[in-house]
Amino acid sequence: MSLDAVLARLDAELPQSLDRLFALLRLKSISADPAFAADVRKAGEHCVALLAEMGFEASLRETPLHPIVVAHWTGPVENPDKHVLFYGHYDVQPVDPLNLWHADPFDPRLEERDGVKVIAARGAADDKGQIMVFLEAMRALLAEEGRLPVKVTVFLEGEEESGSPSLEPFLAANAKELSCDVALVCDTDMWARGRPAITTSLRGLVGEEVTISCADRDLHSGSFGGPAWNPIRLLAKILASLHDDTGRVTLPGFYDGVEETPADVRASWDALGRDAESFLGPVGLKTPAGETGRSILEQIWARPTCEFNGVSGGYAGDGFKTVLPAKAMAKVSFRLVGKQDPAKIRESFRARVRSMLPPDAEVAFHPHGGSPGFSMPFDSPWLAGARDALTEEWGVPSLLIGAGGSIPVGNAFAHHLSMPTLFVGFGLSDDRIHSPNEKYDLESFAKGARSWARILKKLA
Amino acid sequence: MSLDAVLARLDAELPQSLDRLFALLRLKSISADPAFAADVRKAGEHCVALLAEMGFEASLRETPLHPIVVAHWTGPVENPDKHVLFYGHYDVQPVDPLNLWHADPFDPRLEERDGVKVIAARGAADDKGQIMVFLEAMRALLAEEGRLPVKVTVFLEGEEESGSPSLEPFLAANAKELSCDVALVCDTDMWARGRPAITTSLRGLVGEEVTISCADRDLHSGSFGGPAWNPIRLLAKILASLHDDTGRVTLPGFYDGVEETPADVRASWDALGRDAESFLGPVGLKTPAGETGRSILEQIWARPTCEFNGVSGGYAGDGFKTVLPAKAMAKVSFRLVGKQDPAKIRESFRARVRSMLPPDAEVAFHPHGGSPGFSMPFDSPWLAGARDALTEEWGVPSLLIGAGGSIPVGNAFAHHLSMPTLFVGFGLSDDRIHSPNEKYDLESFAKGARSWARILKKLA
Repeated sequence: MSLDAVLARLDAELPQSLDRLFALLRLKSISADPAFAADVRKAGEHCVALLAEMGFEASLRETPLHPIVVAHWTGPVENPDKHVLFYGHYDVQPVDPLNLWHADPFDPRLEERDGVKVIAARGAADDKGQIMVFLEAMRALLAEEGRLPVKVTVFLEGEEESGSPSLEPFLAANAKELSCDVALVCDTDMWARGRPAITTSLRGLVGEEVTISCADRDLHSGSFGGPAWNPIRLLAKILASLHDDTGRVTLPGFYDGVEETPADVRASWDALGRDAESFLGPVGLKTPAGETGRSILEQIWARPTCEFNGVSGGYAGDGFKTVLPAKAMAKVSFRLVGKQDPAKIRESFRARVRSMLPPDAEVAFHPHGGSPGFSMPFDSPWLAGARDALTEEWGVPSLLIGAGGSIPVGNAFAHHLSMPTLFVGFGLSDDRIHSPNEKYDLESFAKGARSWARILKKLA
Repeated sequence: MSLDAVLARLDAELPQSLDRLFALLRLKSISADPAFAADVRKAGEHCVALLAEMGFEASLRETPLHPIVVAHWTGPVENPDKHVLFYGHYDVQPVDPLNLWHADPFDPRLEERDGVKVIAARGAADDKGQIMVFLEAMRALLAEEGRLPVKVTVFLEGEEESGSPSLEPFLAANAKELSCDVALVCDTDMWARGRPAITTSLRGLVGEEVTISCADRDLHSGSFGGPAWNPIRLLAKILASLHDDTGRVTLPGFYDGVEETPADVRASWDALGRDAESFLGPVGLKTPAGETGRSILEQIWARPTCEFNGVSGGYAGDGFKTVLPAKAMAKVSFRLVGKQDPAKIRESFRARVRSMLPPDAEVAFHPHGGSPGFSMPFDSPWLAGARDALTEEWGVPSLLIGAGGSIPVGNAFAHHLSMPTLFVGFGLSDDRIHSPNEKYDLESFAKGARSWARILKKLA
């Protein structure tokens, strides 16, 4: 059977695969530091060369900042009716503080940490290792079969660690060239070592800054305390009104578009044993604050929130001032799931604030971003194929998980290219991405490449 | 009639009285600036000399900072069974910014401002003018009658504009020497030009800083938003719980010791026409925020409050951070009236905070001062006498008013010397105390001295 040969070849050529990964890891593609701009370009050129060598029509595409690698497979394909876009990023985080690294971050090496073989280098997990497992899978497929299972376009940006300023304009400008049937995005984690996972939901975000003004100056609390409105008092009432006693958000229409997680998926989450103690204990907490009756993982992965990210008003320094402040400000954010509409939620929040103010108070709103949640439908055939492939490779049921934060690229692909995104990655929570001594498990690398070979075959 | 002679003498000798005031105003007794320490002492010595010249046993008493003037009348007295302590302060505020003064702040002069004759100088109203009207009244009484109506001790401190650090220790250490039947405190205002007033109530203050901590570090609102407690959310609920919809404070026992203002006093306040528009309009407000059913003046003068003087937590700078903060802090103060107990109110507040926290949250309290309100009983004979004297001098009913802030000396006299305090002063709200171009109306000076002569006679 052909897949077996592909997998056997990946196993046999692991040393060569590692050499190719190490060559990429040696390039100091720190996108945030202008001093490394030439190194970033060199890494992009290196990726182009790797893809061209495999037979892709690969090119480096200019942007106002760092170039984007676009490569199209134009050779033979097993099922030419299916076309996937693979997304990764070849740039890396800065390495400061350098003195906390045990070895040169750009001199990759195999190490053993706590009995586990790991690849140690900046970018090993985020995201060069995760890119290379996909490229190595295609290399083995091509070597054994002379063709790819499906049509593939590779899209690698060099600005992910700098906020991806060029990504959306580039997608918009090249929508026709880049639109495929599905995007494969690789910079996510497994659930745990040995336990593969597909991230099917990410939470969106609506950020709002609200400033309430009362008197036209700070007042003395002795001379005016009583008759004069205090904006902190008004702000506290507003913030306190946003959650009910069960932790639900009280804005009208807030839960429109929030779907219930299927019972079997919830059961699989419950089986993970991620209880309050194991989740909250490490940060010094004990009891869940979210909606009552929802598990910790459901609260994080499948439920929207309203959070207060900052608040200020009056005198907050040492000592005490008997000031009755003119203004008070809060930064409020909503994490969104499913089909919640950021614009409607922003408007519902603003309406709530306005409805609670006396005629004396003025309010100013400042929006700080708005993006919907991302979700891959649980009944998607893309999901089913990938899930089966992962289960077969790892010998345990692969999980469908969520993530509490955002990866904007999923929404960008949906918005500009009208295609769904499958988030599959082999990172682990202890990979120390963005920190000193980043690593990628050797198992993640070896079995990650085998996993992608299986997934591509399944998708065909 | 002897009083008429005293008053006639005050009128006739007004130029000499002004000369004596001007000599004191020329002394640069800025207590807050160590560079003027010798000038402060010089002003104290000047007061001692003035009192000694009138026949007082006067001395300068050392403190760790600026000296205190104590002078006892040991000569003949009309009614030796009554003994009053007169309090004032001979130090003044700094003069910065000097460039906003129209003339040298320490070169006193008579000016006409908006058709009103005023004495312009630093300290003219606060408090040298208010001291000198009392001294001039005694000088005229002695000249005409050869005795004072009652026993008098004069107590002038030189640290009032520096927080009076030596006052309470000095009172405690010299309680026997200084205890009298009543204290006369002169640094208050009239209600308006031509409208004398006695301040019968001042609000006390309890200051509390409350810091709520949840997780042991700042968290990412994507990774933890939902399950993790947000201290801003807890703080907002607590602050929002402190007032009900009618503006009353909801702490148990908060109104214990708050007395209703007599109907006739309230009617006299209502007659002043200080409505929301005239009181709040100048600071850009319209509708009263205090307890419904209470007039503006009652809210300020006779009702306690809970105010929020500062709040902070999380990220409050430009832009947005998806942080779920570890801590949030508020500075809360309570203005107290009547017999409200600062310690009980502090404890009631702390109990409320503790009762609203989940087991995950920790709270730290930091006290910022606590003093009860001050009030002179409306049925006090001291009050009746002074009120009648003022009414006779000014030809209009003198008012009993309150003040929203605190003058700590009233409580200090009650606490250390067990005597009530009568606040009578002739300042006006446009005196620009603490600001450039301070002044004291010539009428306040002339009729102030006449008023004190009448009051001293009444008290006999």
